[in-house]
Amino acid sequence: MAKKLTSRKEDYSKWYNELVVQADLAENSGVRGCMVIKPYGYAIWERMQAELDRMFKETGHENAYFPIFIPKSYFSKEASHVDGFAKECAVVTHYRLKNDEETNEIIVDPTAKLEEELIVRPTSETIIWDTYRKWVQSYRDLPIKLNQWANVVRWEMRTRLFLRTSEFLWQEGHTAHATKEEAIEEAELMLNVYTEFVEKFMSVPVLKGYKTESERFAGALETYCIEALMQDGKALQAGTSHFLGQNFAKAFDVKYADREGKLQHVWATSWGVSTRLMGALVMTHSDDKGLVLPPKLAPYQVIIVPIYRSEEQKQAVANKAEEVMKDLRAAGVTVRFDDRDTHKPGWKFNEYELKGVPVRIAIGPKDLENGTLEIARRDLLSKEIVSIENAVSYIQEVLEEMQTGLFERALKYRAEHTTKVETYEEFKEVLDTKGGFILAHWDGTAETEALIQEETKATIRCIPIDAEEEEGVCIITGKPSHRRVAFARAY
Amino acid sequence: MAKKLTSRKEDYSKWYNELVVQADLAENSGVRGCMVIKPYGYAIWERMQAELDRMFKETGHENAYFPIFIPKSYFSKEASHVDGFAKECAVVTHYRLKNDEETNEIIVDPTAKLEEELIVRPTSETIIWDTYRKWVQSYRDLPIKLNQWANVVRWEMRTRLFLRTSEFLWQEGHTAHATKEEAIEEAELMLNVYTEFVEKFMSVPVLKGYKTESERFAGALETYCIEALMQDGKALQAGTSHFLGQNFAKAFDVKYADREGKLQHVWATSWGVSTRLMGALVMTHSDDKGLVLPPKLAPYQVIIVPIYRSEEQKQAVANKAEEVMKDLRAAGVTVRFDDRDTHKPGWKFNEYELKGVPVRIAIGPKDLENGTLEIARRDLLSKEIVSIENAVSYIQEVLEEMQTGLFERALKYRAEHTTKVETYEEFKEVLDTKGGFILAHWDGTAETEALIQEETKATIRCIPIDAEEEEGVCIITGKPSHRRVAFARAY
Repeated sequence: MAKKLTSRKEDYSKWYNELVVQADLAENSGVRGCMVIKPYGYAIWERMQAELDRMFKETGHENAYFPIFIPKSYFSKEASHVDGFAKECAVVTHYRLKNDEETNEIIVDPTAKLEEELIVRPTSETIIWDTYRKWVQSYRDLPIKLNQWANVVRWEMRTRLFLRTSEFLWQEGHTAHATKEEAIEEAELMLNVYTEFVEKFMSVPVLKGYKTESERFAGALETYCIEALMQDGKALQAGTSHFLGQNFAKAFDVKYADREGKLQHVWATSWGVSTRLMGALVMTHSDDKGLVLPPKLAPYQVIIVPIYRSEEQKQAVANKAEEVMKDLRAAGVTVRFDDRDTHKPGWKFNEYELKGVPVRIAIGPKDLENGTLEIARRDLLSKEIVSIENAVSYIQEVLEEMQTGLFERALKYRAEHTTKVETYEEFKEVLDTKGGFILAHWDGTAETEALIQEETKATIRCIPIDAEEEEGVCIITGKPSHRRVAFARAY
Repeated sequence: MAKKLTSRKEDYSKWYNELVVQADLAENSGVRGCMVIKPYGYAIWERMQAELDRMFKETGHENAYFPIFIPKSYFSKEASHVDGFAKECAVVTHYRLKNDEETNEIIVDPTAKLEEELIVRPTSETIIWDTYRKWVQSYRDLPIKLNQWANVVRWEMRTRLFLRTSEFLWQEGHTAHATKEEAIEEAELMLNVYTEFVEKFMSVPVLKGYKTESERFAGALETYCIEALMQDGKALQAGTSHFLGQNFAKAFDVKYADREGKLQHVWATSWGVSTRLMGALVMTHSDDKGLVLPPKLAPYQVIIVPIYRSEEQKQAVANKAEEVMKDLRAAGVTVRFDDRDTHKPGWKFNEYELKGVPVRIAIGPKDLENGTLEIARRDLLSKEIVSIENAVSYIQEVLEEMQTGLFERALKYRAEHTTKVETYEEFKEVLDTKGGFILAHWDGTAETEALIQEETKATIRCIPIDAEEEEGVCIITGKPSHRRVAFARAY
């Protein structure tokens, strides 16, 4: 284990990098920009997957699987799409290695060159819409509401664990509809599903909104997004849902016969969240001692650490631990018992604080005498002596409090770090001193947006869905504006 | 829908190809050798995944995720491994596309060439053992028992849906141990886990055994396998578990300090099953009307088809269907109601036969009068009129009977198609007339094995684990042999 973590104040970025590795979430691999997701990190991701998958199915979606490779020509069919992804593609050009007889080294066999290069999918709209063409003839074949859990590759030059990696894991939903209205409804529905998941399970509050035209997904007519705020005042895009109009249906010639027999192009959405959510989870709640996890996503919610000197004490404590575990499991609480004698209790306490296990129980000889347990909660770093008969209900309450308490704390932080400004001077000052979301009037042009980004590195995170109508003037050009948009520096 | 299926007798191979597509399991994609797994097929795979994942966790394994790309140099480190996989690799050589200004076409950017080529993983031993080197110092760090759910790519020249595709989905377990004995125990444990899964959930009986040296996994000291028998008398390898010795630990320099502080190389296993199991499932049970699915893996176990003329009847039948569904769900049975009015009942009956839904309920006005349901079972193509109050327990019994009945039927088929032969003449005759497993004596040499394969296309599927000691002579060379091995033509 683990030297001391850098504190957040000292160097937030370093704190994050150290924490992800030391808490056994992930590490860099020998392959540039690709990470290894370690078992503890993967167990959190599995819990995210399970909840999201349930929510997708409850809203009428099914899973399917499409090829990892996309022929280069598919890509070129939707013009803005290829512009968006061409610069960061992993390209397969050959299908065989061989032994070079001269050097006796393994080389790429030059005779095994592909006729058409294949791109490792950065996203699957093109291969999926090429497939939908075969599936859709009539309005009876619609809607199609599919999701795929998959790995994707975007060749990033500067990578960070979970936040930006060349390969990442995600889900991508791809739906096909008979009408524009139905497609928009679907894109909005999935934004709401994401919001519910991120707020209820990750305890991370999000700002829902629309992206500006220049921040839209390559090929979308409208990109909806949820934006979260990290503890360093920077925003993080946690999920997006796109209304794709008929762009992909036109590029891949997907038409249906409507009830009158007239051929129409199909309407599309796509939506996705990725292992990036792991980064948001870590950066929203964790502290200088390590991870803090909302109980609903913790690989295990309770750890029991035994305290003993003699072999006899060890056995008595272990028996009590077994009882407690049985009761907790019966109440639906996940629990582990760390009875390793290779490590001291103090070492274990640090380890489980680092790993963000919500509740720690210590049981020692004194507890056996008194019929008590020492119960520590990770969010407040507090502990209490609790009588053993009240332990299960006490722990259940603590877990519930923690789940909502983490959300409330993050919400409070966000409220304190959301500032309305009226001038560009004020904008820059807030950005540099306090960070967070800045609500300001904007004239709606890409030029102004680009200028602000160039001068301050802040971008328009979104046009909030619930933004009130409010007359004002753009902080740069003084032109009229009807609502505020949310700016921030972002991950 | 669906023209009539080719019958198995007419053309088994064609029957399989048609069935997989018509039953909505999978189809070929626009990418050579890569399949699209359709929602109905994927739902079966998800059920397989869920059961296997549960069994892996119950036996002490955790999931993790390793990069999809493997640097070429990693591959070269284990000599027999690279020999085994070099001929069928997808190789990434570039990381950017660009617009060619002369032709205005999208081309691979020649300036974005990778310094070292990356192989899309055909299996992950090399990247994982490169990682384990960093994780293992002491005996306290062992064992490591990880599994990964992932896609892999092997560039196959002749592909068939599920059975042999360039990209497929699988799980790969990779474990690291302090001792040889523990590693062998692990490899055998996982073979037993696979056996239990395939027999209990897929209702497919398997022969457990060892591969001969020439059929071993590239890099293994021992390959254990389970072999299933398809209805055309050909064998299919359903899963493998490898004892890898210290080969990968040596290639990647993975050592641990034992209790005495002495450095030792680590012992390894790996084990996997893939979407190939879908092929085994289809080919073991299905018939000329379509899929037959064991209830434990069916996406839904019961389909209800309403029969009505008037709107009033429609409503009454729908109400009854809702009641029946509620009762079935309460009993843990998965059920759907097909109330589409775009299709006639007869069409629906065919559709669900094709899709192998285990139980079909038809409800019509007569049933409402009589308090009955018409219940049809897919395995026997039989139907019964059952009183509504007995319906749930009747269906539960049918589902259980079907699960074990399919296994019994397949076991009987295998027993009838397993033949002991004493001479090469007999061997060839049985192979050409009856097929199945042929148990024969073999002298243990790769030469004899190769000769038989060349002349008959039959291979040694395995040396059965429970093969009795029996003195005999090799059917080719007449040399002494101490037990029979199982030959078959295989997928």
